[in-house]
Parts: sequence; structure tokens; C-alpha cells
Amino acid sequence: MRAVLESSLVQRTIIAIIVVNAVTIGCETSAYLMERVGGLLYAIDRIALAIFTAEIAARLYAYRGRFFADPWNWFDAVIVAVALVPASGPTSVLRALRILRALRLVSAVPSMRRVVGALLAAVPGMASIIGLLVLMIYIAAVIATKLFGDIVPERFDELPRSLFTLFQIMTGDDWGNVAQEVMEDKPWAWIFFIVYILMSTFVALNLFIAVVVNAMND
Amino acid sequence: MRAVLESSLVQRTIIAIIVVNAVTIGCETSAYLMERVGGLLYAIDRIALAIFTAEIAARLYAYRGRFFADPWNWFDAVIVAVALVPASGPTSVLRALRILRALRLVSAVPSMRRVVGALLAAVPGMASIIGLLVLMIYIAAVIATKLFGDIVPERFDELPRSLFTLFQIMTGDDWGNVAQEVMEDKPWAWIFFIVYILMSTFVALNLFIAVVVNAMND
Amino acid sequence: MRAVLESSLVQRTIIAIIVVNAVTIGCETSAYLMERVGGLLYAIDRIALAIFTAEIAARLYAYRGRFFADPWNWFDAVIVAVALVPASGPTSVLRALRILRALRLVSAVPSMRRVVGALLAAVPGMASIIGLLVLMIYIAAVIATKLFGDIVPERFDELPRSLFTLFQIMTGDDWGNVAQEVMEDKPWAWIFFIVYILMSTFVALNLFIAVVVNAMND
Amino acid sequence: MRAVLESSLVQRTIIAIIVVNAVTIGCETSAYLMERVGGLLYAIDRIALAIFTAEIAARLYAYRGRFFADPWNWFDAVIVAVALVPASGPTSVLRALRILRALRLVSAVPSMRRVVGALLAAVPGMASIIGLLVLMIYIAAVIATKLFGDIVPERFDELPRSLFTLFQIMTGDDWGNVAQEVMEDKPWAWIFFIVYILMSTFVALNLFIAVVVNAMND
Ligand code: NA
Ligand code: NA
Repeated sequence: MRAVLESSLVQRTIIAIIVVNAVTIGCETSAYLMERVGGLLYAIDRIALAIFTAEIAARLYAYRGRFFADPWNWFDAVIVAVALVPASGPTSVLRALRILRALRLVSAVPSMRRVVGALLAAVPGMASIIGLLVLMIYIAAVIATKLFGDIVPERFDELPRSLFTLFQIMTGDDWGNVAQEVMEDKPWAWIFFIVYILMSTFVALNLFIAVVVNAMND
Repeated sequence: MRAVLESSLVQRTIIAIIVVNAVTIGCETSAYLMERVGGLLYAIDRIALAIFTAEIAARLYAYRGRFFADPWNWFDAVIVAVALVPASGPTSVLRALRILRALRLVSAVPSMRRVVGALLAAVPGMASIIGLLVLMIYIAAVIATKLFGDIVPERFDELPRSLFTLFQIMTGDDWGNVAQEVMEDKPWAWIFFIVYILMSTFVALNLFIAVVVNAMND
Repeated sequence: MRAVLESSLVQRTIIAIIVVNAVTIGCETSAYLMERVGGLLYAIDRIALAIFTAEIAARLYAYRGRFFADPWNWFDAVIVAVALVPASGPTSVLRALRILRALRLVSAVPSMRRVVGALLAAVPGMASIIGLLVLMIYIAAVIATKLFGDIVPERFDELPRSLFTLFQIMTGDDWGNVAQEVMEDKPWAWIFFIVYILMSTFVALNLFIAVVVNAMND
Repeated sequence: MRAVLESSLVQRTIIAIIVVNAVTIGCETSAYLMERVGGLLYAIDRIALAIFTAEIAARLYAYRGRFFADPWNWFDAVIVAVALVPASGPTSVLRALRILRALRLVSAVPSMRRVVGALLAAVPGMASIIGLLVLMIYIAAVIATKLFGDIVPERFDELPRSLFTLFQIMTGDDWGNVAQEVMEDKPWAWIFFIVYILMSTFVALNLFIAVVVNAMND
């Protein structure tokens, strides 16, 4: 049974079904297509889910306890389990998340599996710098909420909104306008924004370097 | 005949004609110049195209079957063939694409040929990460269409538009405004946008690293 | 006493208090929470500050003159000293800066200490390029103030505002609009903006490379 | 005389005068300062220029023909010569360019001289990729002028404006809005913009890599 599951034919069939299913879920967003072939799209969706469930069950039966030794099997099992819930779920969010099933492509294609493995392996080495970056954004958000909350409430009225705005500023998006709105009332506010941009960019740059250097050592 | 075609004089003449022709096609966009020297510009264009066609024909005759062994010859032949079509074509798109003829500069200048060759050689090594990036944008676009399509239809009403918007967000352009339009109705939408930006940036960063590491190993 | 101060238990307790205190200062930004548990938040704040002060005093007593040999001790002492001032200070700015106390997390967690140490060690090697960048922005700001100050006064009326605008342009934020506002009156102004962007980006790129190359040599 | 010119005291004095002069030219942009100390600022400016002229003359006399062997001497001589012109020039542009005199700081400070030397040394190795990038922008600008010139004339009506817009799009500034303005009339225009962004970013990325790899080999 393991030989069958690991055969090239079965693997390719599963990949094909994942791709077809990803396309049909995408087609479901089109009112035009839903009107004409909506029933077919739903049918394909249910058949694909049935095949995925059967395949996971077969792998679980074939490998028993060793199934859970491979984290990718956990990945597949969780995705299919999540996919089974929204099939009966009422809310739009759960229905929208059905497309996450397409992520099974990552575990099914060996080269993508390797890429994602390499990406995840890079994360622990970045933990300290990410921590520093989060700390900086948090400190800046508390200061901005207290100093600018009354002036530009649509950007800084509460801590969560300030965190969002400062994340946006760190990405460089539209920060000049945000700063100028604040500077109309507090002309010295440029100090806050320029210090924040220089420091967060410098730390983000070093985060980037840490990733590159790690990648080169491998 | 091959010696003539490969002689420095002929090569330089061809390069000069490509540059002159690129300039004249650029001049054709100017109403001012077209009024005064439009006839001359068209005449130069037709002469240049005739020379390019004659040169390709000569190379085809001189090298016979071996002409098609070099992909750069295919490149030149396709560009000239495409250039011959719009000369008689009616639509504005085909006329506009005549400037693609200037790409022949790439195959005519050895150092540019090498640069483009190196760029293209880098692509296969990036296939898995590009695939992962495309998969992520597709999944995010399906989710965004289903969840935000009714709220901000001018950004997310259909899958193609969502794909465009999410590509725009990945480049960091104006994403704060897009997110805030959605958050007016669904305040929790920041989760979607921040997760998407962090993940797509991280994968794009690793795509970048893959290119650098490949380049360094060469 | 030194053994006690350096014990894992004391260190972890201090880290926990820093984190709790950072969260309570963040909570103070919420009107909702202040109304309900404001007294508790202030009490925690005062207790945390008392513990920090006591810990610094104990370290000062235990290490005497050698306390000042470690720059991280200076860092902690300055942060606590600054924190003691706003506790009695009247102005909102000083109160807002209380959150800087959370920076003690950097000195308390060894891996963050190492990261910040590495970041700071990179700065001297960048001094010449940073100097060149500052010089370029200054020269561009003087030129822009003189040439564009009358046309677009909200961006270039005085040197400080021009410096701000040119810093913004260097980060790539909204520079197209700034340039177009100026070009309405002085159509040749694109020369200024494109030369400035090319030069500042090129220098910033080399600043970046200097950091990467330094990091790789370590 | 050469010993005097190369003495640490003279060199430091020159650097100090360059800095002071750069500050006074900056102060001249302030109406407030000009009203109060305008005469003093102009006096300092004229004295500084006199000293620079005397220094160049002294170096020219001391080194004779060998003066022109060092490109940095050319640099200094050209800057001072240009500075002498606007002192009597009428137009605002020439007066504004007087601040370029501050660039003499680069030749006067050895570490900045080395940094700029390294930056310039990197340029020839990038020539082919820069050429490719310019060719791509030119081709895209011709196509955009022909296809979109009538729809969005304020962005694409003539070749120079299209070149500006496409340079702006390459830097990622506001490209989503530009593309959407065009797409209102030609919905398929996303193909043009996305292909252009992917290709120009990819080539710019490789330009960047070429600079890094060159820097590492040194
Ligand atoms: Na931007
Ligand atoms: Na922007």
C-alpha cells in the first residue's frame, strides 16, 4: 500500500487534483461562472475533498504511528481537517479559507517542500532581531498614541491603530503624508518619524543580512 | 559571405542602424516632428527594416541549418518577422510594438548578450520560489475576493482584479489605503493584510537571496 | 550579593517585570482600561519602577566602580534615571517617553544584547558613506529651497522643510507627486529629481553593501 | 610650499572653511537670517571663495604640470571655477548651484575621497546592465506614448513625459494609480504594467547584485 501511495502515478494524480480544485475554488468567485457551471464546480470540489480525505486516511492506515513523525503529514492532515469543517460551516470566513487547501501543493511537490523547509529553517536565527523590531514598533506605538492620538485620531487614537500605522510607515508606504498631518499641529514631530524610520529600517536591513549570511553558510 | 557578415564593419553598421531606427520610431510619437519630417522618419523606418530583413536573409543563406542552432538568431528572426507584420497591420497595438525592434540591440552588442544570457540562466533556479509566490498571491486573491469583494468592489470584485490589487500590495504601493478602505467595514482585516505582506515579502526576499547566492557561485 | 544579582531567578524576574511594565504602560493608552483598572495600572507602574531602582542601586553597591566599566550598566542606569524624572514631570512628552523603560529588555536578554552590540559595531564602518549621504541631502536641500521655495512653499519654503522633503523623496515615498507639483512651473525640474534619486539611491545602496560586507567578514 | 599645503593644519583649516561656508550658504535661504546677518553671510561667502581660489592657485603654482595628474585636483579646480561664475551671475539657477562648493569636502576628507573613488570604480562594471535598463525604459516609453497617450495625456502624452512616468513606476511610486487610470479605458493594460515592473525590477535587482559581487571581490 505504501508503494502505491508513493508511486509516481498516484503522486501526480494528487497534484493534478490539487491544481484542478484550486482552479474550481477560484472559479466560484465569478458570478458569471457560478450561474452557468456552479453545480459542476461544487461537485468537483466535493469529489476532490473526498479524494484528499481518502488519501490521508490511506496514508494514516499504511504508516500508522510513523505517519505523525513527518511534519508534512501533520500539515496535510490539518489542511484537510480544516477543509472538512467549512464544507458544513455557515460563515463566509470559513468558506473563504477553503482555498487554503491549495497549500497542499507545497507538500505534494518535492522542490516546493524543500524551498519552504529552507524558509522555515531561517526563522529561528532571526528570532532576536524580529524581537527587537517588535519591541521598537511597540515602544514607538505607545509614544505615538500618547503624543499624536488627539491630533490625528484616525491614525493614532488607540494602540492597535498606532501599531498598524507604524507598521505601514516601516514599509515606507505614504509615511510623508502621515508625518505632515501630525506636523501641522506639532512641527517637531519630524524627529519622531525620522528617528523611527532610520532605526526600523536599519534593524530590518540587519534582519535581511542575517538571513543572507545564514543562507550563504549553508 | 560569413566573414563579411561577422566583420566588425558590418556589425557596427547594423548596431548604428538599430539605434537610428529606435530614435526615429521614438520621434514618430511627437506630433511636432511628424508634421515637419514625418515622411523622412517613415522612409528611414522602411529602409532600416529592409536592411534588417536583408541581413537576416543573408545570415540564413550563409549558415543554412546552423542558423537555427543559435537561439540569438531565432531572437533576431522573430523580431524582424514581427516587425514585418505591423508594417501592414491596421491596429495601434501592432504599430506600437514596432519599437520592439530596438531589442535587436541586445543580440547585436556582445556585452548585452552576455548580460541577458546571465539573467535568463538565473530563472530556472528560481522556479520553485516563483511558484510558491504565485501560489500565495492566488490563494490570497481568492480569499480577498470572497471576503472583501462586496465592500471594496473597485479593488476586489473579481479574481483578476484581486490578483492585480494583491500584486500591487506586494510591491508596497499604497497598501495602507487599500487596507483602511476594507477595515472601515471589517476592522479585523488588518490580520489578512499584515500576514500577506509579511509572508510575500519574506518569500520575495528569499527569491532575491537565491538569485544572489546563485550569482556568487558562478 | 553579586551571585544573587546574576542568578537566573533574579534575571528572569527582572525580565518578567520589564515585560509586565511595558504592557501596563501600553494599557494606559486605552481610555476604556484606564477607567476600569487605571489605579491598578499606576500601582504596577510605581512598583516596577521601585524594583528597577532598587536593582540598579544593588548592582551599583555590589560592583562599585566596576559598575561603570560595562556600557550596558550605563544604559540601564540612564533609562531608569530618565524614568524617574517623568514620574514627577508635568509635560505629556516626558510621560510618553516612560515607555522607553521597555528598552531595558535589550540589556536584560543576552541574545538581544548581542544583536544590538553587532548593530552598533557596524555603525563606525559606515561613517564616511553616511557623511556623504548627509552632504548630498544638504546640498540638494539648499538648491531646492532656492529654486523651488517660491513655487511649492509647503514642501520647500525653508531649509528644514526641504531637508524633510528630500529625505522623504530618498525613501521613494510620493516623490512623483512632489516632482510634478514643481514641474508644473519649472518643466526642467525632472533633471533635479532624477539626478537626486539616482545619486542618493546609489550611495544608499553602497551603504547597504558596506554593512553586508562588514557582516560577512565577521 | 608643498609641505605647507599638505600640512595637517592647512588641510584642517580648509575643511573648516568648507563646512562654515556650506552652513552660511544654507543660512542664506532663511529670510529671517538674511534680514539680520545677511551682510555678514555674504562677507563670509566672499572670504571663503577668496581663500579657496588662493589655495587652488598656490597648489597650481607648487605642483605645476603635476597638478593636473590627480583627478581630485581637477575636481577642486572645476568646483572653484564654477563657484567664481555665479558670484557675478544674474540667474537664480547659477546662484543656487553655489552650494556645490560644499562638494569640496569630498576631496578634502581622505576617507570620503576613498568612498567616492570606490563608488565610481563600480560604475564601469555596471555599464551593460544600465544600458539594458535604459533600453527597456525607452522601449516601454515609446509603447506607452503610442497606446496610452490619448487616454492619460498628463502621464503619457509625449515621449519625455512617458520616460518620467516609467522611471517613477520603476521606483514603485504610485504605480497602482497610474495603471488604474489607464485600465479604466483599456482593461488589458495591466499586462503592460506588470510585465514592465517584473522585467525592470529583475534587471535592477541584477544591477544590484553586480555591484555587490564586484564589491566582494575587492
Ligand atoms: Na512606496
Ligand atoms: Na506610495
